[in-house]
Amino acid sequence: MDGKKVVVVGAGPVGSLAALYAASRGATVEVYELRDDLRNLETSPLNFTKSINLALSERGINALRSTGNDELVETVFQNTIPMHGRMIHTRSATGALTEQSQLYDVHGRYQRSVDRGVLNGVLLNYLDALPNVKIFFQHKLTGADFRKKEAWFEVMDRTDGSSSTRPKEIAVTFDFLIGADGAHSSTRFHLMKFARVNYQQEYIDCLWCEFTMPPTRSGDFAISPNHLHIWPAASFMFIALPSTDKSFVCTLFGPVDMFVKLESAPDAELVSFFDKHFPGVTSQLAPNDLIAQFKQHPHLPLINIKCSPHHFGDSVVILGDAANAMVPFYGQGMNAGMESVRVLFSKLDATPDRAQALANYTEERTKDAHVVADLALGNYTEMRSSVTSPLYKLRKYIEERLDKYVPSLGWATQYSRISFSNMRYSEVIKYSQRQKRILTALLLVVAAAAITGPVAAIWLYVLRHSRHRRRVLYLWVREVKW
Amino acid sequence: MDGKKVVVVGAGPVGSLAALYAASRGATVEVYELRDDLRNLETSPLNFTKSINLALSERGINALRSTGNDELVETVFQNTIPMHGRMIHTRSATGALTEQSQLYDVHGRYQRSVDRGVLNGVLLNYLDALPNVKIFFQHKLTGADFRKKEAWFEVMDRTDGSSSTRPKEIAVTFDFLIGADGAHSSTRFHLMKFARVNYQQEYIDCLWCEFTMPPTRSGDFAISPNHLHIWPAASFMFIALPSTDKSFVCTLFGPVDMFVKLESAPDAELVSFFDKHFPGVTSQLAPNDLIAQFKQHPHLPLINIKCSPHHFGDSVVILGDAANAMVPFYGQGMNAGMESVRVLFSKLDATPDRAQALANYTEERTKDAHVVADLALGNYTEMRSSVTSPLYKLRKYIEERLDKYVPSLGWATQYSRISFSNMRYSEVIKYSQRQKRILTALLLVVAAAAITGPVAAIWLYVLRHSRHRRRVLYLWVREVKW
Repeated sequence: MDGKKVVVVGAGPVGSLAALYAASRGATVEVYELRDDLRNLETSPLNFTKSINLALSERGINALRSTGNDELVETVFQNTIPMHGRMIHTRSATGALTEQSQLYDVHGRYQRSVDRGVLNGVLLNYLDALPNVKIFFQHKLTGADFRKKEAWFEVMDRTDGSSSTRPKEIAVTFDFLIGADGAHSSTRFHLMKFARVNYQQEYIDCLWCEFTMPPTRSGDFAISPNHLHIWPAASFMFIALPSTDKSFVCTLFGPVDMFVKLESAPDAELVSFFDKHFPGVTSQLAPNDLIAQFKQHPHLPLINIKCSPHHFGDSVVILGDAANAMVPFYGQGMNAGMESVRVLFSKLDATPDRAQALANYTEERTKDAHVVADLALGNYTEMRSSVTSPLYKLRKYIEERLDKYVPSLGWATQYSRISFSNMRYSEVIKYSQRQKRILTALLLVVAAAAITGPVAAIWLYVLRHSRHRRRVLYLWVREVKW
Repeated sequence: MDGKKVVVVGAGPVGSLAALYAASRGATVEVYELRDDLRNLETSPLNFTKSINLALSERGINALRSTGNDELVETVFQNTIPMHGRMIHTRSATGALTEQSQLYDVHGRYQRSVDRGVLNGVLLNYLDALPNVKIFFQHKLTGADFRKKEAWFEVMDRTDGSSSTRPKEIAVTFDFLIGADGAHSSTRFHLMKFARVNYQQEYIDCLWCEFTMPPTRSGDFAISPNHLHIWPAASFMFIALPSTDKSFVCTLFGPVDMFVKLESAPDAELVSFFDKHFPGVTSQLAPNDLIAQFKQHPHLPLINIKCSPHHFGDSVVILGDAANAMVPFYGQGMNAGMESVRVLFSKLDATPDRAQALANYTEERTKDAHVVADLALGNYTEMRSSVTSPLYKLRKYIEERLDKYVPSLGWATQYSRISFSNMRYSEVIKYSQRQKRILTALLLVVAAAAITGPVAAIWLYVLRHSRHRRRVLYLWVREVKW
């Protein structure tokens, strides 16, 4: 990319990382971001949503590591809190609060809770320091010609004192454009005018609302800091991720109908709803605060996006949510987006012909993107319901023992392969399906043995003690034959 | 709609018809069309694509009829040519050209071949004559606020002599906006910012290229005028629809790979390809002309679009390809679009609360829209391949006899219900599936009788003539039991 001009649309974690990759390969990089600089807290319209906490795991970390900048990885790590497992909060039959810790990994590997804004800020700071990168905030992509390699941006920043009533529009040429502008990507919209894109977007029947659980009066974490906390309630759930300021960022997920009902219910009902389904929460998150946050914070939808191809010719590619938005239940959205950056540049590094490299990227990545989107959908059921099932726990237990004590089998849970390895998502699924078949066969053998053993024993007993041995034998033969 | 302001985006057949419906209900109607007036042949950028021929059938006709304007229906009819069936062109084992006519309907009902541009022009002429309708061409929808009921259009027409380098943009308020602006609908794009729309678009592995087969030297139709002609070739096909000027509008449909190969092949190869697979075509469409048309006419993709909902609040609804683009193989695209207009206004007429009427419309119509899109996809296989299968012909034969001679059974082919009735698409599918189950069961009974009959006869013969009757009987019983 030496000397090439690369335009990145979107300065979120994925766009910023892509800019770092391009810059380190000698490109002249320009980053255009619709919003204001999130590091300016006062002016940012995102003061609220900046508090989103994410689970950073191996794929995201590996993508950071592959920049070759160890200091960057260390800086990010200093802003994370290890989460060793899930803490499942339920109420026992007697009504007592129970907490059950389910470790993520039998080898001690863990997730890291990180503030999206903090991670983003660290990446932007590193970009700022590079001489071949320029970042433009408040620039909105309004059009693009991916044959002529030209894009247009509306300049929304009026700090230059211009008094024009029409927004200023600028034309920007490029050699290569990377669109990392989120689920409602403008890059994707314009790409779809050039490439024949198969595209699917689906809103699932689930809304979410964020809450902050403050530290205790003594200034400590209100609940265990090293867990991702879940209050599963079958068709809905409440979760909490730790923050470095010792608060927790919590999220209520539930069907649209449930939200509609809660929105029109009296305040007391919201509190008793929490008390009933999310035991212990209201002792850490005061009822008044709970009510205020539910009313003030937006109730937002969740979207699932699949598309293919992710590129057009040699001029544009889309990454992250723009190409592959998923529901948040596997904690893979950002990790997958950052991994896409690593995979994209590995293809670009391997093949000098960029059009061919992008075709290779689409070929490989769309398959994995579709798999992880489906996994994320499936994990909603797991988090809000399966985690309490004895069969789920049994399978997890067996698989983890096999992994730990018979490592030569290469056995591992799907969760650990997704979260703690860099194996392609589509490969993970193949391994999981094979393991599931083997486990099911084993279970059938055990069940068959458990049933036929006693039956055979009874027959042997009858045969040995019967006075009419022949008659019994005859009956038996007829029985078996008929 | 008395006194309400209705804005229609798109002045194609569906948009024009919707404007007629709204105008006849007392609304003040404004129609905004991106392109120039297609009736100005010289200025239209669509001189080529205006020659598309479509099959107008009952649903489209019924939607025209429901305007209450019999003269309009008559004017349209005068511009159509009846097609009583398919003419299947193949080559026999000896190499001779064969034509086989397959009638569409046992009751003599037929499709009507119509030029899209002519039909559109007729509708626009009727709109022009109405005092409460204004049509604006070369107006491009650039934005819309469906809460405030305001839309913005870029005025692309420079005939006012303005010398501004910036296109002029106007704001238009409305009570109700109808988006009938095609598969790449701008209305849909803006609707999706307000409603949570589940959306799917898929390009199928098929391109198409249009050809014109001229009249003979004596000025007559080159082939039978009252058929839709098909040259089926398993994975691709060539079709021809008659025009009122005695030419045929023909289309080559085939996989992308086939087109890529033909595009780079020498001219002679294209002609021999036609000679091999589409027997007789080159004797009507001269090789030089064939080659020129294949090179000059665009090779275009086919898109399948499903989405839900089709509306937002009480302010906007999308119709036709904008909501429900389908591949052309059932000849239902325009018919379904026009039927959507009829269904929409029946809901609006029935329910004074427009938001509720639109919700009712989405509830009913999205189901039917998805069904007809799937049917259209399935019919590609039927047209290019099944039409030559004996089993296909047998089933069509049986079903048609049942329809004709035992009308009390209410039996009918799926094709006739889709093309010659106004039954909901989703209902048609239910009937077809029921009929298929019954036919399959009947076939099994016949097959069982055909097999068991002779077997029983042989046994009876053996029994009657055997000297060891008891032994045979014993064997038989054992046989049956075992």
